[in-house]
Amino acid sequence: MANKLTLKSENYSQWYNDLVIQADLAENSAVRGCMVIKPYGYSLWENMQSALDKMFKTTGHSNVYFPLFIPKSFFSREASHVDGFAKECAIVTHYRLKNDPDGKGIVVDEDAKLEEELIIRPTSETIIWNTYKNWIQSYRDLPILCNQWANVVRWEMRTRLFLRTAEFLWQEGHTAHETAEEAIEEADRMINVYADFAEKYMALPVIKGRKSESERFAGAVDTYCIEALMQDGKALQSGTSHFLGQNFAKAFDVKFLSKENKLEYVWATSWGVSTRLIGALIMAHSDDNGLILPPKLAPIQVVIVPVYKDMETLEKISSVANTLKSQLEKKNISVKYDDRDSQRSGWKFNEYELKGVPVRITIGPRDLENKQAEIFRRDTLEKQSLSLENLPDRIENLLNEIQQNLYDKALIFREENTRTADTWEEFVDIIENKGGFVSAHWDGTAETEDAIKEKTKATIRCIPLNNPQENGKCILTGKPSKERVLFAKAY
Amino acid sequence: MANKLTLKSENYSQWYNDLVIQADLAENSAVRGCMVIKPYGYSLWENMQSALDKMFKTTGHSNVYFPLFIPKSFFSREASHVDGFAKECAIVTHYRLKNDPDGKGIVVDEDAKLEEELIIRPTSETIIWNTYKNWIQSYRDLPILCNQWANVVRWEMRTRLFLRTAEFLWQEGHTAHETAEEAIEEADRMINVYADFAEKYMALPVIKGRKSESERFAGAVDTYCIEALMQDGKALQSGTSHFLGQNFAKAFDVKFLSKENKLEYVWATSWGVSTRLIGALIMAHSDDNGLILPPKLAPIQVVIVPVYKDMETLEKISSVANTLKSQLEKKNISVKYDDRDSQRSGWKFNEYELKGVPVRITIGPRDLENKQAEIFRRDTLEKQSLSLENLPDRIENLLNEIQQNLYDKALIFREENTRTADTWEEFVDIIENKGGFVSAHWDGTAETEDAIKEKTKATIRCIPLNNPQENGKCILTGKPSKERVLFAKAY
Repeated sequence: MANKLTLKSENYSQWYNDLVIQADLAENSAVRGCMVIKPYGYSLWENMQSALDKMFKTTGHSNVYFPLFIPKSFFSREASHVDGFAKECAIVTHYRLKNDPDGKGIVVDEDAKLEEELIIRPTSETIIWNTYKNWIQSYRDLPILCNQWANVVRWEMRTRLFLRTAEFLWQEGHTAHETAEEAIEEADRMINVYADFAEKYMALPVIKGRKSESERFAGAVDTYCIEALMQDGKALQSGTSHFLGQNFAKAFDVKFLSKENKLEYVWATSWGVSTRLIGALIMAHSDDNGLILPPKLAPIQVVIVPVYKDMETLEKISSVANTLKSQLEKKNISVKYDDRDSQRSGWKFNEYELKGVPVRITIGPRDLENKQAEIFRRDTLEKQSLSLENLPDRIENLLNEIQQNLYDKALIFREENTRTADTWEEFVDIIENKGGFVSAHWDGTAETEDAIKEKTKATIRCIPLNNPQENGKCILTGKPSKERVLFAKAY
Repeated sequence: MANKLTLKSENYSQWYNDLVIQADLAENSAVRGCMVIKPYGYSLWENMQSALDKMFKTTGHSNVYFPLFIPKSFFSREASHVDGFAKECAIVTHYRLKNDPDGKGIVVDEDAKLEEELIIRPTSETIIWNTYKNWIQSYRDLPILCNQWANVVRWEMRTRLFLRTAEFLWQEGHTAHETAEEAIEEADRMINVYADFAEKYMALPVIKGRKSESERFAGAVDTYCIEALMQDGKALQSGTSHFLGQNFAKAFDVKFLSKENKLEYVWATSWGVSTRLIGALIMAHSDDNGLILPPKLAPIQVVIVPVYKDMETLEKISSVANTLKSQLEKKNISVKYDDRDSQRSGWKFNEYELKGVPVRITIGPRDLENKQAEIFRRDTLEKQSLSLENLPDRIENLLNEIQQNLYDKALIFREENTRTADTWEEFVDIIENKGGFVSAHWDGTAETEDAIKEKTKATIRCIPLNNPQENGKCILTGKPSKERVLFAKAY
């Protein structure tokens, strides 16, 4: 029997942690801030990777691999980039261990000190642009559209499984273009790819927007993002796409001969999503019984559980179950038939609820007699008995229905939790007592943004794309503003 | 026009390096010993990964992810393991950079020194067995069958693209079992999976065997390997699978309650293949014109090149070519139609030969008239004109034929280059003048093995599985021996 989860309403953050551990997704490792992603959690990541990778390839990108290490000197070339990452780097200084001459075990060999320290990549713009310099001579070499799936390290002090870890897995796209327009178009294309993925696969509605200057990626001219709302009313940044201008091209002296035969700096973008998305997925849909996974990403879409007292009945059920399993598999539905004799069926029901399997099919002796099965939906917890005839088609439809229902529910939740504030009192009241997104006027300065954050812990999540222009007054300073922006407390 | 490759017969090692660079597979990075894997090289790796990953899953394994970092103290627990890896580790000692107070740019912040140094994993047995300790209580928790795709770092002094790099990509399987028999069976299963992959996908015949004691993995009781012969007569170890006994279970105190209710140490295996396989693939089949890739792994299996003088002809050819392309794609054949106007067809012919595309289809005006196309096989360099009718079926067959032909050719080469030596003079003559594998008697001692290596640079590649038992005398010492072993110079 699974341990009891902390109730979501009691302690959301403990509920999240319990769920990650008990559903066997991941655990903390012996290395501070680093996680072990367990088989069930990793297969969720594989499903995400596979869908995203196809989308990247369809939009013309190729995968590559660049080194884990970045020479310290590369790091310093783009001033705001190093400011953004210098304080949380893992630094390699030596390349050999030896036996301690004083017999104290294994120690670092001080004779094997690197001439230049190497930084474990927190992101790869610098090593990649240093390489692109050799790949790009003329406009004929452009665009370059590369992506890599890799591990990165940011030495975060406070870590939480999936949401913020010292090492995490991600993909980082790095593209090079002839013109600013083309690079902006690429950055925009990729934030739309992320939004599509979030909505179609994760069943997670997101708001596409631009970051304010102080929330921008270190080294970017403009950062696009997708923001999602979690069930506790906090926002979670789920993906970013950066227009880097010519910053990295200038830092690494990457020029190309244009069609007009002029030497010009190359324009750049970068964009990424990470294992953090697993955290978003968990927090967006799950409940006090455990995970709720959207069918399109669930490692197991359908589980079949036999209910029986004697082996003869089990054999009869197995025959029906195995036929059903192969019918479903022909429809590319992933099915597990759990006929283990070592666990009771009640234990199995709990287990698969905890693990968020979208559909459970139970078959018992009476079902056999009536040529039917009991179908349980994880999202609504509803049960119904259905005839075995046409069951595969109905399950296929049901999976689509669950996928859509999760999205609709999340969208309604977000709409109910997106509010407008026109005064400071309203703003504070919503942030403190209701949570969610607050749409409010802001005077456009970093000082005001900081002051609001200091007073309420709310940050500007984004300036939505295609934001309606509207004259108003900043909720804090009363200074004139031309558009509302979205505030929220965030992960 | 591509640069000219060094001739294989002139300088094999330069030919290899030229080929990796000119075929756009990989290049050296700015970080010593680390490579950049470029899109074409990476797509080859993706094809390998995808085939291997399916084979691992079919044999019951799940993917996971463990931390990049290993605390130094873990490393010291298994004595022979640390001996094997201590001299080539990248070591993280600090976690923050800062602005130099003396204005000399960015420096390591000495206040941010780690209490315990972290080693970048050269392999993950230690961090994994430290974790398995918490996963395993009883026989019910066994077996554990995990694999991870990851980057690892071994600070090699002399590096070569793909064959030996400081950072490389690989997969490492780590399994835990109740009994020695079961673990040995697993190690054996996985060396067979590797051999199948090499033979069926890479078209590379391999010899399965066991390593001698001195060539064993650091920490293993027994190491199984697959050994392949390259075209220069040197052997290349292409995959290993280790029976680790209870060594890591003892080092990390991992015990389980057996069915007999006794507390016992767990039995282990680990197994891996790496981006080194790409090196093997290149060296096994390619020629002075460039890469020769087996169809089952080639990123582009068929390229269609139009030959035309005016745009009207191109349009007619394109119509035929696009139909053919979609017919081939329906058969899951990957096709590129290269109708770029910026390059001459002769340039394209060279380019796709260099890149090892198995089949080229050329369509010109006369082909249109005769409803045919010219088919070029990369492996034999043969051309023939074939009717467009039924062409997709014939191409499908041709790809299978090429796959088989590459394997057959490599097998004949290996058989012609596997020789028996019964005296020291014979042995030295073969190693120095002919190369290839030498099957010879050895007295079974590490001293003799070392002496042979010192004198000839040849090492024992393996003791073949199911090796015929035969009385003989050690070629060096004349002492009695019960079986022949395989020697070769190796990468």
